[in-house]
Amino acid sequence: MTSTLITGIGLLSTQSEIDDVRDAAVVLDGDRIAWVGIGNDAPAADDRVDVGGRAVIPGFVDSHAHLVFGGERSAEFAARMSGQPYSAGGIRSTVAATRAASDDELRQNVHRLTRELINSGSTTFEIKSGYGLTTQDESRALRIAREFTPETTYLGAHVVAPEYADDPTGYVDLVTGEMLDACAPHARWVDVFCDRGAFDADQARAILRAGMSAGLAPRVHANQLQHGPGVQVAVEMGAASADHCTHVDDGDIAALADSGTVATLLPGAEFSTRSPYPDARRLIDAGVTIALATDCNPGSSFTTSLPFCIAVAVRDMHMTPTEALTAATVGGAKALRRNDVGSIKVGARADLVVLDAPDPIHLAYRPGVDIIHQVWRAGAPVRRAADER
Amino acid sequence: MTSTLITGIGLLSTQSEIDDVRDAAVVLDGDRIAWVGIGNDAPAADDRVDVGGRAVIPGFVDSHAHLVFGGERSAEFAARMSGQPYSAGGIRSTVAATRAASDDELRQNVHRLTRELINSGSTTFEIKSGYGLTTQDESRALRIAREFTPETTYLGAHVVAPEYADDPTGYVDLVTGEMLDACAPHARWVDVFCDRGAFDADQARAILRAGMSAGLAPRVHANQLQHGPGVQVAVEMGAASADHCTHVDDGDIAALADSGTVATLLPGAEFSTRSPYPDARRLIDAGVTIALATDCNPGSSFTTSLPFCIAVAVRDMHMTPTEALTAATVGGAKALRRNDVGSIKVGARADLVVLDAPDPIHLAYRPGVDIIHQVWRAGAPVRRAADER
Repeated sequence: MTSTLITGIGLLSTQSEIDDVRDAAVVLDGDRIAWVGIGNDAPAADDRVDVGGRAVIPGFVDSHAHLVFGGERSAEFAARMSGQPYSAGGIRSTVAATRAASDDELRQNVHRLTRELINSGSTTFEIKSGYGLTTQDESRALRIAREFTPETTYLGAHVVAPEYADDPTGYVDLVTGEMLDACAPHARWVDVFCDRGAFDADQARAILRAGMSAGLAPRVHANQLQHGPGVQVAVEMGAASADHCTHVDDGDIAALADSGTVATLLPGAEFSTRSPYPDARRLIDAGVTIALATDCNPGSSFTTSLPFCIAVAVRDMHMTPTEALTAATVGGAKALRRNDVGSIKVGARADLVVLDAPDPIHLAYRPGVDIIHQVWRAGAPVRRAADER
Repeated sequence: MTSTLITGIGLLSTQSEIDDVRDAAVVLDGDRIAWVGIGNDAPAADDRVDVGGRAVIPGFVDSHAHLVFGGERSAEFAARMSGQPYSAGGIRSTVAATRAASDDELRQNVHRLTRELINSGSTTFEIKSGYGLTTQDESRALRIAREFTPETTYLGAHVVAPEYADDPTGYVDLVTGEMLDACAPHARWVDVFCDRGAFDADQARAILRAGMSAGLAPRVHANQLQHGPGVQVAVEMGAASADHCTHVDDGDIAALADSGTVATLLPGAEFSTRSPYPDARRLIDAGVTIALATDCNPGSSFTTSLPFCIAVAVRDMHMTPTEALTAATVGGAKALRRNDVGSIKVGARADLVVLDAPDPIHLAYRPGVDIIHQVWRAGAPVRRAADER
C-alpha cells in the first residue's frame, strides 16, 4: 500500500469538524486519508504531489442520478423551451428506449456518464433504476448500476408502467411483489416518485414499506411538480432523503427540520424544466439539512456537473458558496447515510478534488468553466492534472 | 499545405446559407474550408478524420471579453451573492491589481483564459483593455492582447481613472488624446462604457469620434445597469455592436432593428450579478441581430464558456437552442464585422467544433457538461479528442 503526501494546498476545505486550513497538506494511505494538517507539519510519505497553492475540497457526493437509460430527449427539451410544460409522462419515452437497448448499450451509457461525473469532481454517486418498469428491465438496470456504485436505488415506482395504465393497483402489487424480489439483491435503497402523475401517499407508503421489509432503506421523490404529501411521507417513513422539495409548506419544513431526513435539492431539474427553484433559504434557515445533487436523467436534468448545480444554487436559490459546497459534499453524504465520504478527515475515503482556483468560491464565481484540476478517488488519481491532459 | 477530410458528421450545422446537412463531411485545406457537403460525395484529401456520427458546428465567436487583468474578485462575488448590489465601482479594484502586475503575469493570465476559451469551443475572441486607465497601462494591455487576437478593443473609457475622480473631463481629454495615440496602433476597435457611474452620452460620442478619427471602429457598452442613452449613441455612431442591452425601450429596439448595429447579449453578467436578463425575445421578434458573448471579466462575469451562456440564454432569455447557437457563432462574427469566421462555408477559416452529441441542442440540454469533443482552429486541431486526452 502506497502513501502519498499532497502538499502545497493553498486552502483546504475539509467539510468536517476540522476548520479550513491554509497552506495545508493531506496524506493518503492506500484508499484512506491518514493525516490532515498544516503543510510544514506533514509527515513523510512514499510519493509527494505539490498542487501549487490550489484549493482542495472533498470529492462531491451526487446522491441522486438516473443513469441507466437508452436514447435521449433533446427534441422534447427544445419543444419545452418553446413553451411546452414538463410532465412526468415524458419518462415513458425513455422507458421504451431503455427496454429496447442491449445490456452493453446501457452499460456504455452509464460508463460515459460516470466518467463525466468523476471528471467534474463527483467521487461518490447514487444510481437509480426506473426506466425499465418490468421485473426483468428493472433488475437488469440495477445489476448494471451495481457495476459502478454500491449506492443503487430501486425505483420501479418511477411512474406506472404503460402496460398497467388502467391498473395502477396491479402495478403497485408488481413493484411490491415479484419486481421487488428480483431487484432487492442488487439495491441498497428503495425510492418512489410521490407526485402528480406518479404515485399517491398510500401507494408510496406501501412501496416503501415493502422495500424496507426486503432490507432496503427508503428515500422519496417528493414535491417536485406540485405541493403534495411526498415530504410528509418521507419523514414519516424515516427516509434518508426527500428529493426535489420544490413545493413545500411550513408543515413540510418543520417536519424536515425535526427529522433525520435530508432535503436534497436538484436545481438542474428546475433549470432544464424552467420551473421555479426550491426555496433553499427558507429550508436552511429552519435548520433543515440540505444536499445538492444533479438528478442526471435524459428528460428533466441532463447534467452530470455538481459545479454547475452549485453555481445555480448560489445564483438562483440564494445559497452562499459555502452552503452550496457543503450541500454538494457532506450534505450528499448524509443523504446517502455515509460517514466515510464527503469530508476530509482521518479515516475517510481518500476522495479529493484539486481546483484550478485559490478558493472554492470559484465553483460559483466561474460558472460553466471546468476548474477541476485533478481528482483523487479512494487514493487513486482518476482525473489527470489539467497540464498533463 | 495539408488537406483534411472530416467525415462521419451526423449533423452539420453550418450557420451559413447552406442548410444543415446530415451524414456530412467537410474538407479543410490549410487554414480554410475547401468543401462542404454529403459525406458520400466528399473528395479525397491527404488526411481523414471520422467523427463517429457526432454533430459539428462552427467555432464560437466570443465578441466581448476583458482578459487582460490582474487579481480576482471572488470575495466581492461572495458578498454580492449575500445581497450586496453590483456597481461599476468594483472595476477599480481590478485596475489596481492590473497596474501592479508584471507583463508576464498579465500574459500568463490571458494565456490561461484563451486556453479555456478554445477548449470550450471559441475559436475567435475579442479582447479589451480597460483595467489600466493610464496611457502606459492601457497600451500595455493592448500590446499583450494583440499577441492573442487581432480583435483588440481600446477601452480606456471603461470608468474614469481614480486619479481623475474629481476631473472626469480631464480624463476624457486623456482618453481621446495621449492615451488614444499610444493605444490606436494596437487596437482595431474603440469602446466606451456608457452607463451609470461611467460615461454619459456626450462623453461617449467624443470618445468614439476620437477613436474613429484614429482609424478605430466603434462598439459600445450600452444599457447594462439602467436605461440610458447607450444604445442610441451606438446606433447613431454606426457601432458594430451595442453590448449588454439589458435595459432597453421600444425606441432602442426600433433603432437597433433599423441599423447595422448588433445587440450583443451577455447573460454571464446577469447570471453573476443576479440581475434581470435582457429581453432577447423582444429584440429577436423586432428583427434585431443578436450576438451572445461571455463578457469574461473578474468582476461581473468570470466565465469563458459560450456553451454555458447558450444554456442560460435558452433557459432564462427564452431563446431557442437554434437562435442561441446562431448568436454565439455567426452573430458574434457580425458583431466583429467578420465574414470569414462563425459559419461553415467554402473559403471561411477552418474553425470547427465537434460535439460529443448528436445535435447542437445538447449545448443547452446538457448544461454545465463539457460536450466539446474536438476543436479545429484555422485548420489545426487545438483541442484533442476527448478519448485521447
